[in-house]
Amino acid sequence: MRATTIHAPGDIRVSEVPDPSIKLPTDAIVQVTAACICGSDLWPYRGENPIRAGATIGHECIGVVAEVGSEVTSFRPGDFVVVPFCHCDNTCAHCRAGVQSACVNVAVTVSGQAEYARVTQADGSLVRTDGDPDAAMTRSLLALTDVMATGWHAAVAARVPEGGTAVVVGDGAVGLCGVLAASVMGAEKIVAMSRHESRQKIATEFGATHIVAARGKEGEADVAEITGGVGADAVLECVGTDASMDTAFTVARPGATVGFVGVPHGVEVPVGRMFSKNVGLAGGMAPVRRYLPELLDLVTDGQIDPGRVFDATVPLDRVADGYRAMDQREAIKVVVEP
Amino acid sequence: MRATTIHAPGDIRVSEVPDPSIKLPTDAIVQVTAACICGSDLWPYRGENPIRAGATIGHECIGVVAEVGSEVTSFRPGDFVVVPFCHCDNTCAHCRAGVQSACVNVAVTVSGQAEYARVTQADGSLVRTDGDPDAAMTRSLLALTDVMATGWHAAVAARVPEGGTAVVVGDGAVGLCGVLAASVMGAEKIVAMSRHESRQKIATEFGATHIVAARGKEGEADVAEITGGVGADAVLECVGTDASMDTAFTVARPGATVGFVGVPHGVEVPVGRMFSKNVGLAGGMAPVRRYLPELLDLVTDGQIDPGRVFDATVPLDRVADGYRAMDQREAIKVVVEP
Repeated sequence: MRATTIHAPGDIRVSEVPDPSIKLPTDAIVQVTAACICGSDLWPYRGENPIRAGATIGHECIGVVAEVGSEVTSFRPGDFVVVPFCHCDNTCAHCRAGVQSACVNVAVTVSGQAEYARVTQADGSLVRTDGDPDAAMTRSLLALTDVMATGWHAAVAARVPEGGTAVVVGDGAVGLCGVLAASVMGAEKIVAMSRHESRQKIATEFGATHIVAARGKEGEADVAEITGGVGADAVLECVGTDASMDTAFTVARPGATVGFVGVPHGVEVPVGRMFSKNVGLAGGMAPVRRYLPELLDLVTDGQIDPGRVFDATVPLDRVADGYRAMDQREAIKVVVEP
Repeated sequence: MRATTIHAPGDIRVSEVPDPSIKLPTDAIVQVTAACICGSDLWPYRGENPIRAGATIGHECIGVVAEVGSEVTSFRPGDFVVVPFCHCDNTCAHCRAGVQSACVNVAVTVSGQAEYARVTQADGSLVRTDGDPDAAMTRSLLALTDVMATGWHAAVAARVPEGGTAVVVGDGAVGLCGVLAASVMGAEKIVAMSRHESRQKIATEFGATHIVAARGKEGEADVAEITGGVGADAVLECVGTDASMDTAFTVARPGATVGFVGVPHGVEVPVGRMFSKNVGLAGGMAPVRRYLPELLDLVTDGQIDPGRVFDATVPLDRVADGYRAMDQREAIKVVVEP
């Protein structure tokens, strides 16, 4: 099959690789109808994460079940499914506690930007949709495989209170979805820290009541003013750098929680400030499967349209252009069509 | 008055210093009837914190109101009061949110191990008792000024669930009070990590169902076995060192929260493990005033007896012996009688 592969920083190709196959009786193979590029795919692309030359890349996709293993009972070929980027059995103690991303059988999609993807623990991982989606629905379902569930997780981890104030640090697709999540959860003031006009626009459409374009001390002062000097009830840290984490802790009111979902890169948690301010830190890799049923309902009911974070589409053959556009912030998030 | 002063690491004296006086109309002066030595007093004693030579030391005391400022309306001379180690107005936004330790007017008792102590924001800070306490009650009330409220805060921050499993890292007086708090909150399994027999005994009396005497990898393995390989629902980190924090994160189950109340010294928060395990960190300086009414009720109703953490008493003139005994772990916690 044709699949996206990475060979070195900045070197994304479409290669012919072996089709994925059923390796365990709990596996399924999904024919990918739409995929997308994640902000975390940019870490190896930028040389920040190690690369195994020639490895497939991409963990966000939706599609049609092509084949199932002998122990898969809930799905059959032809089912249209959403594939959470992290697979889980949905039965172990961690899954039952709502932390499917720490499932004892956890695995991730490794050839999402390709024609086919292997999904482990298919019965636990996959969620079927009602029929085949149209173009708009396709984008929103794609968003559920990672980015919307991750923004939602940031809001859950930060314990966004109804009627309260939430600050979202980061205006990538995850941050924008965090704004949308805080809005659904009933936050009264939602501050999006964003300095890009196109992203500010989506943030506002997603429910942001305030935009803070400044960064660092100046941006933190702007948030302080918006929160009457008290600080935010909940902070969603959707970047994963030390600077963004620092801002998150600074704008949090005492007793608040910083919900973090960006894979931490070079973050030194300011534990002394956490102690003196009683600001907590919670979050991590999103348990996508936990949130999928609820988010799918919100999408199919038309209450949320997270697919709006996609502002570009490329065919699989031009996936490298998609990486380049996201890396250079010319696109927020890119759909890849096999 | 006579007061405990610190002059250099290991150099604790009783000195004649000026009596504290009303400096603000919201102040009160309390005649100290009983005080005690805190684990955190040992940081400067051991040279781990900077010392201002000759400064008074001690932040835990109870006593009788001797004098009040012109704006103090809720207390008058003769009232027997519990003095939370951190003072607060109990009216600001942070106090109203239950984070009195981040009050905009926060201050701490600075001459607790002395004949008199100045209490700022007296109306907000102090809590009156029903009459003068007897000896046993004196010890429990003393415990409420910091150590019991701090152990309680660890349990609150860690969100100890009824029927769940709590692990307490640290068998100092705070850790023991954390065991007691987890017990009151209805934890079914309470694991006290303690290698000192006298402390294990109190932990058991306070409700610990399991004692783990080993430390490091071995102790963590013991906890894993007790929790059926799943990990603890809640972890109370009551030490503040990097090693204790590391153990806390290791024994926490995915989705759990580490409640930390030990002033962090040299702690590097393992943010990567927090991310992959979805383990949160919350806590900090305990909002003692928030918990005082509830804890005072539990004490006066005879439901808890946190005063049991005191296993030695010294007169003020021999306060240095008390520091020495705690430093050398010959005593768990020492009462100082002016």
